[in-house]
Amino acid sequence: MPKLWNDTIETHRRAVHKAITDTAAALVAERGLRAVTMSEIAEKAGIGRATLYKYFPDVEAILRAWHARRVLEHLGRLIEVRDRPGGSGERLAAVLEAFAFIVHETHQRQGHHDSELVAFLHRDEKVAQARRQLRDMIEELVKEGATAGELRTDVPPGELAAYCLQALTAAGGLRSNAAVLRLVAVTLSGLRSTG
Amino acid sequence: MPKLWNDTIETHRRAVHKAITDTAAALVAERGLRAVTMSEIAEKAGIGRATLYKYFPDVEAILRAWHARRVLEHLGRLIEVRDRPGGSGERLAAVLEAFAFIVHETHQRQGHHDSELVAFLHRDEKVAQARRQLRDMIEELVKEGATAGELRTDVPPGELAAYCLQALTAAGGLRSNAAVLRLVAVTLSGLRSTG
Repeated sequence: MPKLWNDTIETHRRAVHKAITDTAAALVAERGLRAVTMSEIAEKAGIGRATLYKYFPDVEAILRAWHARRVLEHLGRLIEVRDRPGGSGERLAAVLEAFAFIVHETHQRQGHHDSELVAFLHRDEKVAQARRQLRDMIEELVKEGATAGELRTDVPPGELAAYCLQALTAAGGLRSNAAVLRLVAVTLSGLRSTG
Repeated sequence: MPKLWNDTIETHRRAVHKAITDTAAALVAERGLRAVTMSEIAEKAGIGRATLYKYFPDVEAILRAWHARRVLEHLGRLIEVRDRPGGSGERLAAVLEAFAFIVHETHQRQGHHDSELVAFLHRDEKVAQARRQLRDMIEELVKEGATAGELRTDVPPGELAAYCLQALTAAGGLRSNAAVLRLVAVTLSGLRSTG
C-alpha cells in the first residue's frame, strides 16, 4: 500500500480511538465505572459494537487508555514548563504551580471524587511510571536549587520532592485559583526555610 | 438478668468481636480483600461459622469494623497529644508529628500499599468524619498559633490544615523515623515562613 493510504488509516484509527476513550471517560465521570456498558459507549461514540470490540476488550481497558493519554499529556505540559528559561528556583516554582493546577482541574472536572475509580486508574503501571518521572524531575530541580543556595540543604532532595507532590495534592480540595496559588506558596516556603 | 451477668456477656462479645476483626485484618493484609473467605476467618479466629455470621454478614463488614476501631484509636491518640500542656505551636507540632508516625506505621504494617483496599475503607462515612474532626483540630491549633504570632496569617487556617494533612501523608513512603521527623519539620516551615 502507498504510504499516504497507511497514513490515512492511521489517522482514522487515532480519531476513533480518541472518540471512544473520550466518550467512555465522560460517561464514567457521570455515572461511575460500574454503571457504564460497552453498548452505551458504542452508541454514544457513533460506532458499531463490533468496531468497538476491535479496539478494546472492555470498559476498564478503555478507561485505562484514556487515563494513560491524560497522564502523558500532563507530564508533557510539566516538562514544557520545566524547560522554559529561568533559574532553578523559578522553574521549580513554575512546575509546582502547573502540577497544583493539574490536580485542581482534574478534581473539578471529575465533579465528585470517585475514590474507587481513582484507585483503579492509579494501579496502572504507566501511571506509576509517570509519577516516578515527575518526582525525579522535581528532585532534580530541588537539587539545583539547593546547590544554588536557594533551598534548604538539611533534607535530602528526594524527600523534599515527595513532600511537594503530596502537599500539592491538597489542591484537589480547594475551591479557587487563589487558594491553589496560596498552597503553592506555602509548599515552597517549606522548601526554603530551615526554621 | 443481674448486671454482672450482662457485663460478662458484653465482655465476651467484645473479645469475640476483637478476635474476628483482628484475624480478618491480618488475613486481608496478607492476601488482599478478595482472597479471604468467611470460613477462613472463622477457622483462624477459632469460632464456628454460625457464630461468625451472628456478628458480621460478610468480610467487607468485618474489615470496616476493624478499620473504624483503628481510626478511632488513632483519633484518640491525637486528641491526647493535643491536650498535653504547652503553647499552641508546641502542641501543633506534637499533633502533626504523631499523625505523621501513624501514617508511617500504618503503611509499614500494610507491607505493600493495597490502594483498592485503602479506597474501599476510606469510603466509609465514619472515616470521613474522623478525618474532618482531625482537620478541625489542626485548624484550631493553627488559628491559635496565628493569633499568638507564631504562624503565618496570609493563608486561611483551614487551607493550612489541609496542607498539613496532605503533606504529612508522604510519611507513608518514607523509610526511617528520621525521615518522618524531617518531613514534619519541612511541613512546619511551610506554616511559619511567609517567604
